[in-house]
Amino acid sequence: MGSTEDLDYPQIIVQYSNGFLISKVMFTACELGVFDLLLESGKPLPSDAIAAGLSASTMGMKRLLDACVGLKLLAVEMTQEGALYRNTEISNVYLTKSSPKSQYHIMMYYSNTVYLCWQYLADAVREGRNQYERAFGVSSKDPFGAMYRSDEEMLKFMAGQNSVWSICGRDVLAAFDLSPFTQIYDLGGDFFNDSIPAAELYILSKILHDWDDDKCKQLLAKVYKACKPGGGVLLVESLLNEDKSGPVETQLYSMNMLVQTEGKERTAAEYSKLLESAGFGMIQVKRTGKLYDAVLGRK
Amino acid sequence: MGSTEDLDYPQIIVQYSNGFLISKVMFTACELGVFDLLLESGKPLPSDAIAAGLSASTMGMKRLLDACVGLKLLAVEMTQEGALYRNTEISNVYLTKSSPKSQYHIMMYYSNTVYLCWQYLADAVREGRNQYERAFGVSSKDPFGAMYRSDEEMLKFMAGQNSVWSICGRDVLAAFDLSPFTQIYDLGGDFFNDSIPAAELYILSKILHDWDDDKCKQLLAKVYKACKPGGGVLLVESLLNEDKSGPVETQLYSMNMLVQTEGKERTAAEYSKLLESAGFGMIQVKRTGKLYDAVLGRK
Repeated sequence: MGSTEDLDYPQIIVQYSNGFLISKVMFTACELGVFDLLLESGKPLPSDAIAAGLSASTMGMKRLLDACVGLKLLAVEMTQEGALYRNTEISNVYLTKSSPKSQYHIMMYYSNTVYLCWQYLADAVREGRNQYERAFGVSSKDPFGAMYRSDEEMLKFMAGQNSVWSICGRDVLAAFDLSPFTQIYDLGGDFFNDSIPAAELYILSKILHDWDDDKCKQLLAKVYKACKPGGGVLLVESLLNEDKSGPVETQLYSMNMLVQTEGKERTAAEYSKLLESAGFGMIQVKRTGKLYDAVLGRK
Repeated sequence: MGSTEDLDYPQIIVQYSNGFLISKVMFTACELGVFDLLLESGKPLPSDAIAAGLSASTMGMKRLLDACVGLKLLAVEMTQEGALYRNTEISNVYLTKSSPKSQYHIMMYYSNTVYLCWQYLADAVREGRNQYERAFGVSSKDPFGAMYRSDEEMLKFMAGQNSVWSICGRDVLAAFDLSPFTQIYDLGGDFFNDSIPAAELYILSKILHDWDDDKCKQLLAKVYKACKPGGGVLLVESLLNEDKSGPVETQLYSMNMLVQTEGKERTAAEYSKLLESAGFGMIQVKRTGKLYDAVLGRK
């Protein structure tokens, strides 16, 4: 940064400017079913066959495929019959609908919901609140009412959450020895209004980041009350550094919490404080080095 | 790519998914005037002073500033009075409005026009045509009528073009010895309908990429007719590799031509063919390694 070379030609600024083009090329290839068709075909295909198979224009599809090659999401082979395209291994595993590690649903949620909300990022920063009203014409006072504004939207969001879990779940669950806990309750649903059953371990996966401190304390107090003695609560969240200087992904997700919810991403100390205020103690923190980290508190 | 590590955790897929978040954080910090305020202040400022100075929420601004730190567009210093933010050198040069190399206008064009059009990338690929009609409700048959649909839009677009020229112009003009040409005409305006004056050198900067082959041939024939003997034409364009396997930036811009125009990015051989079909010869190609390359043809 700041070297003469960077100042002569601002590579990172060009790269950041192109960020949304890259996201949309990948999302669109997923949405049109490019990776699924290539997986099913079992052999490399020319662009016109892919276009025909997906009812797309040959001219548009050819350019999309070439951009995917540039992004290393596809590989191309020049043959006597012309260019033949095939999936890279990473696309087979993560970008096809049928793969157990498919990220297809979270991509569709990003592409068709989050992308639109982020058109209003400047308004979100000015006003300090989410932008569901501007983006979708639904009230932003109840962010989950807005997110779940139709069955289709709710399913998209939930399928998206599952996509993320498929790549981060194992590390998070391996962060601590959870074998002492035999009764585990994965918190979900309308937990501010519904009663919470007694259990030994409560998993709150990406729940607290949706809410402000007051609502988090209210929810944790309710969990503490239901929790059996010796039990605990496992928070699955993306942790900010204590000085909030990074990681950059978590900073970006905290901006997304601003645009879409009433919450924010927090540091390990902030989560510990919330847990302590509800009565939990012996707090342990484990960073996984991936998207989601783990914080364990005991009753 | 394809290593076991990549397959366990798809770093590039996460990175590509976050691309639009990164673009929008940078665009929004520009739009709200963060870099201008910090340049003018001449000293590092706390987040609440920046929020107050820009009439933004303190909570939203703090998160935006931290994300800019993560992206190395700002630097932060922890002091007794709390965190103080300042521009990095690259932000002073490229992201402030007043800098001679400012990219502010192209960013605003990207953020408020291109970003919206790209919401319809899947439709553009399906239909093989630009998406002005869906994005802005204006007819897509005349892409420049659509781009210049208001004086404000036209000024935004032109200021954006100037931003790019300020970082790439020098390399492009230094690509060939242009000193023999004393009468130079920079083609712009309504060149399909207006007459083109006689000159020794015509510069067509990012013009041919907006049009299909037929229109390009038509325009080049008109230029050839006007051109003095011994004169020439200089094309300033971003060149694709001959096998279209890259560069990835040019592939992305070719997708943008699909979404926004009737044109595409081309290879050096494709531009040479267009020039030859209009009568130009002695074609020379110079890649600059930056966004825009140069192709010179002689009459």
